[in-house]
Amino acid sequence: MTDTVISSAKKEVVIGFERPFVVIGERINPTGRKMLAAEMAAGDFSRVISDVQAQLEAGAHMLDVNAGIPLADEPAILAATVKLVQSLTDVPLSIDSSIVAALEAGLAVYQGKALVNSVTGEEDRLEAVLPLVKKYGAAVVAISNDETGISQDPNVRFEIARKIVNRAADYGIPACDVIVDPLVMPIGAVSTAGRQVFELCHRLQKELKVNTTCGASNVSFGLPNRNGINAAFMSMAIASGMTSAITNPLHTEIMTAIMGADVLMGHDQDCMRWIRKFREVPAPGADGVEARGRRETRRRRVEA
Amino acid sequence: MTDTVISSAKKEVVIGFERPFVVIGERINPTGRKMLAAEMAAGDFSRVISDVQAQLEAGAHMLDVNAGIPLADEPAILAATVKLVQSLTDVPLSIDSSIVAALEAGLAVYQGKALVNSVTGEEDRLEAVLPLVKKYGAAVVAISNDETGISQDPNVRFEIARKIVNRAADYGIPACDVIVDPLVMPIGAVSTAGRQVFELCHRLQKELKVNTTCGASNVSFGLPNRNGINAAFMSMAIASGMTSAITNPLHTEIMTAIMGADVLMGHDQDCMRWIRKFREVPAPGADGVEARGRRETRRRRVEA
Repeated sequence: MTDTVISSAKKEVVIGFERPFVVIGERINPTGRKMLAAEMAAGDFSRVISDVQAQLEAGAHMLDVNAGIPLADEPAILAATVKLVQSLTDVPLSIDSSIVAALEAGLAVYQGKALVNSVTGEEDRLEAVLPLVKKYGAAVVAISNDETGISQDPNVRFEIARKIVNRAADYGIPACDVIVDPLVMPIGAVSTAGRQVFELCHRLQKELKVNTTCGASNVSFGLPNRNGINAAFMSMAIASGMTSAITNPLHTEIMTAIMGADVLMGHDQDCMRWIRKFREVPAPGADGVEARGRRETRRRRVEA
Repeated sequence: MTDTVISSAKKEVVIGFERPFVVIGERINPTGRKMLAAEMAAGDFSRVISDVQAQLEAGAHMLDVNAGIPLADEPAILAATVKLVQSLTDVPLSIDSSIVAALEAGLAVYQGKALVNSVTGEEDRLEAVLPLVKKYGAAVVAISNDETGISQDPNVRFEIARKIVNRAADYGIPACDVIVDPLVMPIGAVSTAGRQVFELCHRLQKELKVNTTCGASNVSFGLPNRNGINAAFMSMAIASGMTSAITNPLHTEIMTAIMGADVLMGHDQDCMRWIRKFREVPAPGADGVEARGRRETRRRRVEA
């Protein structure tokens, strides 16, 4: 049993092998979102506020916060965003940046025990990020690549994960505070991408005894009906032992696949979360199928 | 590598660990379908004909044929249905009955190598069904229960599967012609039902080296949004090594989950089946999301 506790001032989320899967909402991230980037750079956080609310309503258990905007003062914007989001919600946050100064600025204002996203197996990243994780008593996402890039050999990725866990221990960070991202490649380019991840999740749980996460949507890059692939991937990853993911909770197919997998893993006691979510009665006067069709169409519009 | 070949006079389907998942359409079955039962008993097979076509269009690779109608002449009706279905399609059939005389009547008229559905670990069933399987050169579904019922202990179910495989060998039936059904219990009643099946699929592939199948929809019995549970279950079962299922191909969520799982297992070469199915362009003038919403609503109506 490995429990990773992440918290805000008032709320804890626990990631673990025998617990419900933890969804970390990915939407507060200006990468690839031009309007959000321009607004955040100009100090307009209205879209961040609506993204917080929409993701919580959709069932996110934690939120990832990223402020990676080219030429902007990322440390200041990330810190401001972290403060803002914590004023809106008690769910714990993942503080996401490739810039160490931005991670530190976010951690300095964060209330609670954050998740730092992320460190890799590269020496300079290990030396820069792990001391921060220790200083602020945080947990950290460990991405299983290093200076040589991303190996197609799952054994190499596993050994990088092991190296990061060991290095974290040298800094006084326990393995339960390291969440490994086994790296999800696009299945359209790498036909073994799915099985690599499934095998790694299994080994990371059994051998390294660490929790796992991933940026799930990458797996479907370049394919049609991406949500269909992403949904199947999430269920299969959970069956293989994955315990959290950074993903878009506004996609109902993905959330349904995750909730269904929780039921089937025996992690939704008496199926109560599933029943609460889906027991809604169709609108009066409509037959079940038509009403459900309409409701799902409505949901899709909300997601658009 | 264990390949189970099932055939009609003109077409082979191969079930195997490194092959696309095989969907056996379950619809030609009067159990719980009063109108179909009455029609089949009266010699009206019009609904069977439409069920054949609908299931093939939905992507079924094989069809299960059952004629279990109380007080009717099941052997005669099953034989007539098998002949009719074989006149309509080249896909191989699973001949499904709990009555040995009906299995024999179906096998006697079948063109090709059928799948017999099913035998259990009960002594009288083994003694009655296996000689028929051998006589007609068929393959057989082996259900992992015996005289003592369905064990909640996966080890007991595994040992029953082993016993059936060994007994089949005594009759000259190779293990590759035995497809084990590890038995899927309702997750709403048995919280370990999912993990039992996932573990059994894994062991059946690694240790007994046999293909697997199941009646998938049982897992969601009593829960709302059954297709959501069934879809997650199928993806997870495939990740665990399941190689076929007897299910309803008219449920698009389930077929999407199966096709997505094939992609992620590396069993859909270059993702071509996925791309062919989902690359359709939305109707002109509509934006993508709305058009997809409408199309899926239309599909649901077809399924109703």
